[in-house]
Amino acid sequence: MDYTEISYAVADGIATVTLNRPDKLNAWTRVMEGEVRAAMTAAANDEAVRVVVLTGAGRGFCAGADMNLLADTSAAGADTRPQDHAPGAIAGGLDLPPDFSLRYAYFPTVPKPIIAAINGPCAGLGLIMALYCDVRFAATDAVFTTAFARRGLIAEHGISWLLPALVGHANALDLLLSARKLNAGEAHRIGLVNHLAAADALIDQVMAYARDLADNVSPRSIRVMKRQVYRAVQQSLEDAILIGNAEMPGSFASEDFREGVAHFVEKRPARFSGR
Amino acid sequence: MDYTEISYAVADGIATVTLNRPDKLNAWTRVMEGEVRAAMTAAANDEAVRVVVLTGAGRGFCAGADMNLLADTSAAGADTRPQDHAPGAIAGGLDLPPDFSLRYAYFPTVPKPIIAAINGPCAGLGLIMALYCDVRFAATDAVFTTAFARRGLIAEHGISWLLPALVGHANALDLLLSARKLNAGEAHRIGLVNHLAAADALIDQVMAYARDLADNVSPRSIRVMKRQVYRAVQQSLEDAILIGNAEMPGSFASEDFREGVAHFVEKRPARFSGR
Amino acid sequence: MDYTEISYAVADGIATVTLNRPDKLNAWTRVMEGEVRAAMTAAANDEAVRVVVLTGAGRGFCAGADMNLLADTSAAGADTRPQDHAPGAIAGGLDLPPDFSLRYAYFPTVPKPIIAAINGPCAGLGLIMALYCDVRFAATDAVFTTAFARRGLIAEHGISWLLPALVGHANALDLLLSARKLNAGEAHRIGLVNHLAAADALIDQVMAYARDLADNVSPRSIRVMKRQVYRAVQQSLEDAILIGNAEMPGSFASEDFREGVAHFVEKRPARFSGR
Repeated sequence: MDYTEISYAVADGIATVTLNRPDKLNAWTRVMEGEVRAAMTAAANDEAVRVVVLTGAGRGFCAGADMNLLADTSAAGADTRPQDHAPGAIAGGLDLPPDFSLRYAYFPTVPKPIIAAINGPCAGLGLIMALYCDVRFAATDAVFTTAFARRGLIAEHGISWLLPALVGHANALDLLLSARKLNAGEAHRIGLVNHLAAADALIDQVMAYARDLADNVSPRSIRVMKRQVYRAVQQSLEDAILIGNAEMPGSFASEDFREGVAHFVEKRPARFSGR
Repeated sequence: MDYTEISYAVADGIATVTLNRPDKLNAWTRVMEGEVRAAMTAAANDEAVRVVVLTGAGRGFCAGADMNLLADTSAAGADTRPQDHAPGAIAGGLDLPPDFSLRYAYFPTVPKPIIAAINGPCAGLGLIMALYCDVRFAATDAVFTTAFARRGLIAEHGISWLLPALVGHANALDLLLSARKLNAGEAHRIGLVNHLAAADALIDQVMAYARDLADNVSPRSIRVMKRQVYRAVQQSLEDAILIGNAEMPGSFASEDFREGVAHFVEKRPARFSGR
Repeated sequence: MDYTEISYAVADGIATVTLNRPDKLNAWTRVMEGEVRAAMTAAANDEAVRVVVLTGAGRGFCAGADMNLLADTSAAGADTRPQDHAPGAIAGGLDLPPDFSLRYAYFPTVPKPIIAAINGPCAGLGLIMALYCDVRFAATDAVFTTAFARRGLIAEHGISWLLPALVGHANALDLLLSARKLNAGEAHRIGLVNHLAAADALIDQVMAYARDLADNVSPRSIRVMKRQVYRAVQQSLEDAILIGNAEMPGSFASEDFREGVAHFVEKRPARFSGR
């Protein structure tokens, strides 16, 4: 596929998806939306890919919906964007509840870790896309804002649910009702991002983390556990335990378990097959 | 309305509700309960009010239920306080699930942000009232305690649910089972309060935050989003997404959205109508 | 009961359960599993015990499932461990939903606080046991890992649900998908442990916390509140409020409430009967 507003590259088991409108701080467009979906689908279905990294070209991560799109919408007095009932689940993705088949909510169905490398401003829809990633690294000079309430908009695309799940509902209210900017340090303190890195070290640190997962972690374990965690958000503890129990015989019979024990006992690097 | 145990003042779009029994560290009484409800109802229904601040007079925020009330109850061997089935939802408030129509749980139905300015000791029922606010600022010398377990009491008025939602269930167990005191620094670290300020700067910082919301944030957005977040706590991600989708056309057609884009493009202060 | 892989001691109202295979970093075995259950049941039913401490002998807390057990399982290609449908609720324990009657999930049914004193490596199943405790203290040199994904295993025994409840689902994904090691400082920052202590001060600090609970907190309050919090994780706010309301008359009629007010008014140490 030829991409025009993103770039997609695979090397050494790591797929890198780069939002690529640097002169617009990678503001989100419908073209970009389709291309990100195509890239994530390709990564999900490429056996050579073990980890996915999402980042932005230039000095921003994603400044939110493109202002031209918003201005057109404002002028028209109606949402001209496609509605969110379109299926979001990707072909070949994990079997998850329908929550994750909605427009922007499909990242959890990608059976590989998606790591956000937040290299600069991360706002509105850009923040939502970051929140649907599994793990977030941010540059220490990145800035975050929900933005919606200062535009007259509302909590779009599940952020009313997702933000409380990540940072508790008090921090979620603070960030949604005020739409204030917060810096990377505060984002880290409240759990909005998992890891901080100096701006010029960000991509190296993300790649080291991705490299470690690609080399030393069972792809089968990741596939099963990512599904377990995203299902657990709608489950009782009992359900989560029973699903874990049901998954255990398969894990004990797997090649990856045999290798997981063998490399540990033999004190050598792992060579997981993913089966 | 003439208030005797609180004061109520509106200025520049900000309503300030002050618990006003400073010689008793603003210990909670039935009179205070009724007056706070009356003030919150007034603020909810006053178009001139965009933000509400709740604070305490003197050196305390609220030391919990008045000890005379507790001592009477102890002597009588029964709860002489009115039961909590009384409707808590306020006239003109947001349409929320019945959870928020119970006695102390109605703050989320106020369609405006409620910011707690915790200026000193915050204990027991005083802590519960602070937790029902949307955003919490605390003075660095404020002290917190759940208190109940050291009085032989239990987790009252929803704190068994609310505290885990705010700080995770491990911190909630620590604070409820031990009823130990924690200082403002720890409260901030675990997410019990959102913001810290030096004692003599607290009210200025709270007012600056409130001022920013009153001036630069769409009242319509706040109204819709506050309802979204408090509904989301009982919802699936799917429900939250679909409610967001249903709210989007209305937001795109609103005056506040037109103004939200216009002031941004024109690089001038916002003048939101709230419609 | 004669214990072989743990030790159990009661002194001054505090029961200490010590995992005791120090040459194996207290790796978990079926014998240990049965002995921990016996010790927790004894502590639950001994009126002299007010608080339970769980710790490890030597330089580790618990390194996870014993590698011999895992290696046997790997060779056999199947789980030879007993399945988890065995009842986990202990005799005389709290009345909680069936979630807490599953194999490793019964600690919440113990009607007394269980405090983990994490004195060293805490991995895999050892981490799960720590997470089922109510409050966690860790030595500053303790190291944590979920471990499963590096062994080819999955999210066992409810950790897919429990970890998000404690640290949010983003941190949970980071720790489960990467199975990386994290140090005590990071564990504290994200809420995985409640309190940190220097290694040589850990047990003293845990005992001081336990001592405070045993001396100054109502056993009746703890019993009721522990049940309230663990039930609340499956409840609406409304349910949690109504259960609190239903518990209030009993608390106001209790000896512990009378004593809780009396010792406060009389400014003397408490002498709670637990009734």
